[in-house]
Amino acid sequence: MIAVDWGTSNLRLYRMSASGEVLERRRCEGGLFDNAEAYADRLRREINGWEDRDIVLSGMVGSRSGWQEMPYLDCPVGQPELAAGMQRFTPPGFEDRRLWMIPGVCDRQSASVPDVMRGEETQIAALLDVLPAGQHVICLPGTHSKWVTVRDGRIISVATAMTGELFAVLRIHSILGKLMSEDDRFDAYAFDAGLRRSAESGGWLQHLFSARTAGLFDQFSAAALPSYLSGILIGHEIRASDLLTRVPRPAQVHLVGSDRLLASYAHALTTLGIGVQRHSEHLAAVGMAKLLALVEVG
Amino acid sequence: MIAVDWGTSNLRLYRMSASGEVLERRRCEGGLFDNAEAYADRLRREINGWEDRDIVLSGMVGSRSGWQEMPYLDCPVGQPELAAGMQRFTPPGFEDRRLWMIPGVCDRQSASVPDVMRGEETQIAALLDVLPAGQHVICLPGTHSKWVTVRDGRIISVATAMTGELFAVLRIHSILGKLMSEDDRFDAYAFDAGLRRSAESGGWLQHLFSARTAGLFDQFSAAALPSYLSGILIGHEIRASDLLTRVPRPAQVHLVGSDRLLASYAHALTTLGIGVQRHSEHLAAVGMAKLLALVEVG
Repeated sequence: MIAVDWGTSNLRLYRMSASGEVLERRRCEGGLFDNAEAYADRLRREINGWEDRDIVLSGMVGSRSGWQEMPYLDCPVGQPELAAGMQRFTPPGFEDRRLWMIPGVCDRQSASVPDVMRGEETQIAALLDVLPAGQHVICLPGTHSKWVTVRDGRIISVATAMTGELFAVLRIHSILGKLMSEDDRFDAYAFDAGLRRSAESGGWLQHLFSARTAGLFDQFSAAALPSYLSGILIGHEIRASDLLTRVPRPAQVHLVGSDRLLASYAHALTTLGIGVQRHSEHLAAVGMAKLLALVEVG
Repeated sequence: MIAVDWGTSNLRLYRMSASGEVLERRRCEGGLFDNAEAYADRLRREINGWEDRDIVLSGMVGSRSGWQEMPYLDCPVGQPELAAGMQRFTPPGFEDRRLWMIPGVCDRQSASVPDVMRGEETQIAALLDVLPAGQHVICLPGTHSKWVTVRDGRIISVATAMTGELFAVLRIHSILGKLMSEDDRFDAYAFDAGLRRSAESGGWLQHLFSARTAGLFDQFSAAALPSYLSGILIGHEIRASDLLTRVPRPAQVHLVGSDRLLASYAHALTTLGIGVQRHSEHLAAVGMAKLLALVEVG
């Protein structure tokens, strides 16, 4: 089968063996289109040479502004519900294939405003039958970080923190970026100072501004300031979850994402006394293979 | 005397009577220049027709990237310290005038990173000899809101919350703005919902993202979403101060700023059970007149 993780930034394609191993993988720029033909053309080009009959898609390609809008499934959601919610569709030119789209997941219970994910549920699906019974916290850092609670094989809550996007807009468009260099090296000293700053009184709107005054007063160099800001943001993101206050405190957080992004989160979590278990972002392909297998059995 | 409140956005000029009344006022776009001649030309043009000998300047015009860099005075700072810190300078072409620049104020004690203000200290100076003995909280909302504590006539702490700037960059540059209309009417229902949202669990990075999901799930119209986001931000700003937890709770907050901005803050504070006393943004002119009088006495 072919697993397609189609987001607004990245498009990742995987050819999977019958036993769920990645045989080949391709990656290119993602993005959404105005019309169905453009999606079909793009997919046809990217899977060129791969003859597998089943193609499973997940991510923003299934959103309102995507190829084929898929509804959100309400929590709690396990592998069986995700598999049952998959929809088959046959765009022109794909009559000899079977295309499947995976639904998103919605949490309407945890807050006064619903929270959603689309794409991340497929990565989590790969873990649902592997994690032991009981409750687990999964964090998928990114532009819009997802914090997901899983209990006994089902997703029970979803919370989105717009950490990555906020970091980017503050750096590019706010006064905070003016004193920062374009250097992107991780500066552990500045990151840790930001992490500590996030625990001080005064509140986050003041903590953010300190990324300017810390530069004005030469507490950090232009190259270190981005790490300081990153430490403040990730510190707030972690503290906002109930990880540090929950009793008993969870032994670990499952982190899913790219090595580079996970490095910052793992550093922050371990500094705050929480263990981490890292998982590759390619988990999405494994999840799609597992869900397809359930559809075929069903 | 002529009082000049020169910021990066606005340049406000006032002609004051000997008894500290505003006789005339002018307002135009502010901004900083590369060289001293440009500042001198600009000032000469804007005070055209005003012959007063003393000209007092405050605001970003005294910053490192301004006309004449002024040091920051460390808290605690009262009217006598501000007056003593004023520096006289005589740019070419102003030999028949006396130009004075007011120093900024720095709080190095309250947090691990210093916090500063430049311009707002002049507005507060107008209140320092008027407020009764004891402790007072003054909030000057804006791009960078200042929260200032005054005790017995002296400024003892300064905290900056980048609320206004964050609202602007999120609205213009982030995904949150995509569902918002350009309508800028204050929607009290949406604002109050944002205010309540800011008190929920989950943390601010998630609260911010709810300005998107609230739009996706049609909880608020495109015209109401900006007020919802504003309620979230101002709610967090107020909660981050220790106003709601301090014992005894302060009876009121002094708000200084434009009518329009103060309306949102007054609405939020009274909703949260805190009284407000409003002061005009033109307080700066009164502060400059008072400080000049102290210099002349000294």
